[in-house]
Amino acid sequence: MLSEFDLIARYFQQPGLASAGPWSPQLGIGDDCAVMSVPEGRQLAVSMDTLVADVHFPAAAAPELIGYRALAVTVSDLAAMGAEPAWFTLGLTLPEANPEWLSGFVQGLQQIAQKVGISLVGGDTTRGPLTITLQVHGLVRTNNWLSRKYAKPGDDIWVTGTLGDAAAWLSYLQQGLVESPTNENLKALWSRYYQPVPRVAEAQKLVALGCQCAIDISDGVLADLGHILTMSQVGALLDLSSLPASNALQQVLPDPEKRQEVMLTGGDDYELCFTAPPHLAKNIIELLSPSCPITRIGQINQAPGVVSTSGQPITITKGGYQHFS
Amino acid sequence: MLSEFDLIARYFQQPGLASAGPWSPQLGIGDDCAVMSVPEGRQLAVSMDTLVADVHFPAAAAPELIGYRALAVTVSDLAAMGAEPAWFTLGLTLPEANPEWLSGFVQGLQQIAQKVGISLVGGDTTRGPLTITLQVHGLVRTNNWLSRKYAKPGDDIWVTGTLGDAAAWLSYLQQGLVESPTNENLKALWSRYYQPVPRVAEAQKLVALGCQCAIDISDGVLADLGHILTMSQVGALLDLSSLPASNALQQVLPDPEKRQEVMLTGGDDYELCFTAPPHLAKNIIELLSPSCPITRIGQINQAPGVVSTSGQPITITKGGYQHFS
Repeated sequence: MLSEFDLIARYFQQPGLASAGPWSPQLGIGDDCAVMSVPEGRQLAVSMDTLVADVHFPAAAAPELIGYRALAVTVSDLAAMGAEPAWFTLGLTLPEANPEWLSGFVQGLQQIAQKVGISLVGGDTTRGPLTITLQVHGLVRTNNWLSRKYAKPGDDIWVTGTLGDAAAWLSYLQQGLVESPTNENLKALWSRYYQPVPRVAEAQKLVALGCQCAIDISDGVLADLGHILTMSQVGALLDLSSLPASNALQQVLPDPEKRQEVMLTGGDDYELCFTAPPHLAKNIIELLSPSCPITRIGQINQAPGVVSTSGQPITITKGGYQHFS
Repeated sequence: MLSEFDLIARYFQQPGLASAGPWSPQLGIGDDCAVMSVPEGRQLAVSMDTLVADVHFPAAAAPELIGYRALAVTVSDLAAMGAEPAWFTLGLTLPEANPEWLSGFVQGLQQIAQKVGISLVGGDTTRGPLTITLQVHGLVRTNNWLSRKYAKPGDDIWVTGTLGDAAAWLSYLQQGLVESPTNENLKALWSRYYQPVPRVAEAQKLVALGCQCAIDISDGVLADLGHILTMSQVGALLDLSSLPASNALQQVLPDPEKRQEVMLTGGDDYELCFTAPPHLAKNIIELLSPSCPITRIGQINQAPGVVSTSGQPITITKGGYQHFS
């Protein structure tokens, strides 16, 4: 069996992972701590995610996909702040040190680490039930980041990309709503679950434009917008007919009501939901599209709660994955 | 049942934990990321530890002790760098949100957080097998920290405090070497296991004196000194008779050979092992004792390997807990 030290040296201490981004640590893997410099004029943004096998991902999935997805969804929290990814640490608990699994897992990590430019600087490997904890460290310009608490009445509410694809894939797996999709559609939904692309560059553009309020969509846009509304002490008017659906989702869920439900409450999208004053709309569209589709889905209201443009109240506790509920 | 949000608000978002130290975050728990400022002239030192129930601590232990010990042993990595504790994040995976357990766990965390001055800034709570991942963030003066790689031939080798107590307690639990101790001795050993005191202030004094090389003793002084020797590409001469034993350890393990074995290879001490050129010896003793007992246990050699002062080679692979061995 591999010792912890061999395991770290063989799988994690390689340049493709430890120097995957432009922000090299001053001292990386191998000492009691990693040491990093935060440049003048920048602040540090950090977020930690824990993913438990068969709670947050299927334990039997290919290790490349588990590694890719774990880091991608954690980096999505940096995107939600408009932070530039810099460093990450990995707490990996494994039932056994299986070389084939580890090598696949590291490949998946490396693929997304290089894509977003984030370097592995440390962590811990232990024996136990498969659990992955990742902490990501990003850099923001001092006092210049996106937060859940800065939505203002009159702001437009926007989302990037399309919603509901990952949830539809899970629903297909669990023999729920989605039945007999074509292979092509299935693959499109599958890749949205396993290979989400955190909106890192887009969020930094939003900060540069003067946007202040965003969240990433992990629990469904209704629940995540709900966090913005609670923390900003405002409400929202939502145009449900405007929710953006991919071609694949439209084909596998032709019923508009069922599709709307999945898009509102499904989760695992890792798109951004952000708000901005209407005078920024033109600039936002110009700067983000066509590479990143964006859709205006409603407006921030003074009055709390969420109502649809048809005047119907939308229950905010309806969706969203509650880990301890 | 409590939702994740209720749980965070009720147990983790309280000032005693979220403002336990002098370095308040600019943005703490509740957004997508925490945001912190690293002052000019300082660098960030980070370390992550994962503790799995019944691998790294007894799952049935009092939750106060589990919380205290988990954070104390992770902060010990900051001590090993000479870093000042500032912020920590917590990834807590729990089979269920038991209010009594959580409240005890938070009390234990809070006790040590306030003692070392470290504030909780974020994390993640998930459902699954009891696993605790902590990441600690400390501040060092730029280019001025302790590392495993700076031991030099001729350096004295020092340890703080006494060795082997925590391991003797575990050995008693497992009905190993230690039999029928007095209650008083048992309590002394027990508290060394559950309530280690990371040598945070002592390490910062060592940095101020010009010391450059340290590690904290988690796997036994022989294994941890071994990491220093490997990374510094040197060897060591050890005076085994000088290893510092507490009164309790001397009483429960009167056999000198068995005691030596436990002190060398037992682990869980969370004392510092550090090296320093001999001309610093007087200053080190003056600055650290009597509040922190320190003992010179040997000297760094040019030649690799560890030998005792009686000329006997000491096998370095003998001790040390290898998580995947």
